[in-house]
Amino acid sequence: MKTLIIISHPDIQDSSSQRFLQESLPQSVDITVHHLEAVYPDGKIDIQREQQLLREHNRIIFQFPFYWYSSPAMLKHWQDEVLAENFAYGARGRSLQGKELGLVLVIGVGEKEYQVGGTEGFSISTLTTPYQALANKLQMTFLKPFPIFQFQYMTEHEKMTLLLSYQQYVTMQNYDSLREKEKWYLQQLAKLKIEVDSDHTLLVIDQMEEVIEDHRMELDEIQMYIDGEVI
Amino acid sequence: MKTLIIISHPDIQDSSSQRFLQESLPQSVDITVHHLEAVYPDGKIDIQREQQLLREHNRIIFQFPFYWYSSPAMLKHWQDEVLAENFAYGARGRSLQGKELGLVLVIGVGEKEYQVGGTEGFSISTLTTPYQALANKLQMTFLKPFPIFQFQYMTEHEKMTLLLSYQQYVTMQNYDSLREKEKWYLQQLAKLKIEVDSDHTLLVIDQMEEVIEDHRMELDEIQMYIDGEVI
Repeated sequence: MKTLIIISHPDIQDSSSQRFLQESLPQSVDITVHHLEAVYPDGKIDIQREQQLLREHNRIIFQFPFYWYSSPAMLKHWQDEVLAENFAYGARGRSLQGKELGLVLVIGVGEKEYQVGGTEGFSISTLTTPYQALANKLQMTFLKPFPIFQFQYMTEHEKMTLLLSYQQYVTMQNYDSLREKEKWYLQQLAKLKIEVDSDHTLLVIDQMEEVIEDHRMELDEIQMYIDGEVI
Repeated sequence: MKTLIIISHPDIQDSSSQRFLQESLPQSVDITVHHLEAVYPDGKIDIQREQQLLREHNRIIFQFPFYWYSSPAMLKHWQDEVLAENFAYGARGRSLQGKELGLVLVIGVGEKEYQVGGTEGFSISTLTTPYQALANKLQMTFLKPFPIFQFQYMTEHEKMTLLLSYQQYVTMQNYDSLREKEKWYLQQLAKLKIEVDSDHTLLVIDQMEEVIEDHRMELDEIQMYIDGEVI
């Protein structure tokens, strides 16, 4: 799976969250990071190039600060220019059909404000309806949005958890299935084993792998039991 | 009441609907039409000037083609630049508090598609949530959006009805109350009487006024009767 991360941010050098996210990404030929304001400082978009980039990737992620409940202007400009009729929708072209669309939203306000009675008054689900409608129109699968609330107040531990979830959002097939998460962790552990040379660390990794595999076996047994009961 | 119509449209000269709307507006010192792409062709917004314009008006209307379920990029850029903390919200400035925010949306797809099962899949109410949240945050009153579906297929009669409703949306206090609509029509008729010099036309106008006033009296009587019953 190849992922295209389309970032829109007018002042990215001042954004510690965007820097953190970019540094979180593994070096991989399967991930393309594409910061619109950097590529097109004069705002003139190369439509052919953008459409080609979209064709070459399976998961498309819009990553931006959630200004006024939407993206910065540059991404909207990109949408209006690149997602043209007969390329993105219409009878003579549905180039994005079957691909995935995700959102990584960096949000300054706390999560609890995004509900009835909160200062923002609406949920992220409701506020992102225009993107759901976009995915719908382009026959793309819309991923659960990935909102990052108040990065600046996160503890180191919260940031490490964020780093892992973000890597999964970008690289993991069937994002958000528990079974896929297990696989993903096992892959990460396998990679780690190549890199470490301390016997002690290797032992810890082996044990972690065993724990994950044991849990999976137990879960599968419970599942079989439940399925049996239902029948 | 003073109304500011902020238009965002990248190719307004090609838009028959935008031309129609602009020609529909009465000449009035109480209406300011402000086409962002024309005022700022290089995209550089004079923030002070825009904030001053907002201060000088009571009803703010965003008027734009509904591209990808939102505005063209220029209006979003305007929002992010002009609606700054301590001018529009925050402890040291709530300059828009108590004003009204309206949306005039020009939409190419038919109304029936904006629902579950339609090609667009969501209602205009849901898709405009980011603007509702904006009004909410700025402590503005959010007016019912004014969507114009498929202008290009409208009959002359439909266009005339549109013209009147649009004038009301822009100029009428308490937009959408029946009593205000009556008042508004009576004002229009009074203006007309100054302009016409045919006795026959004057007679017709007098009769129309009488009909409206009679209906109002009947409605008021029914209302008194209902109120009496309830007590």
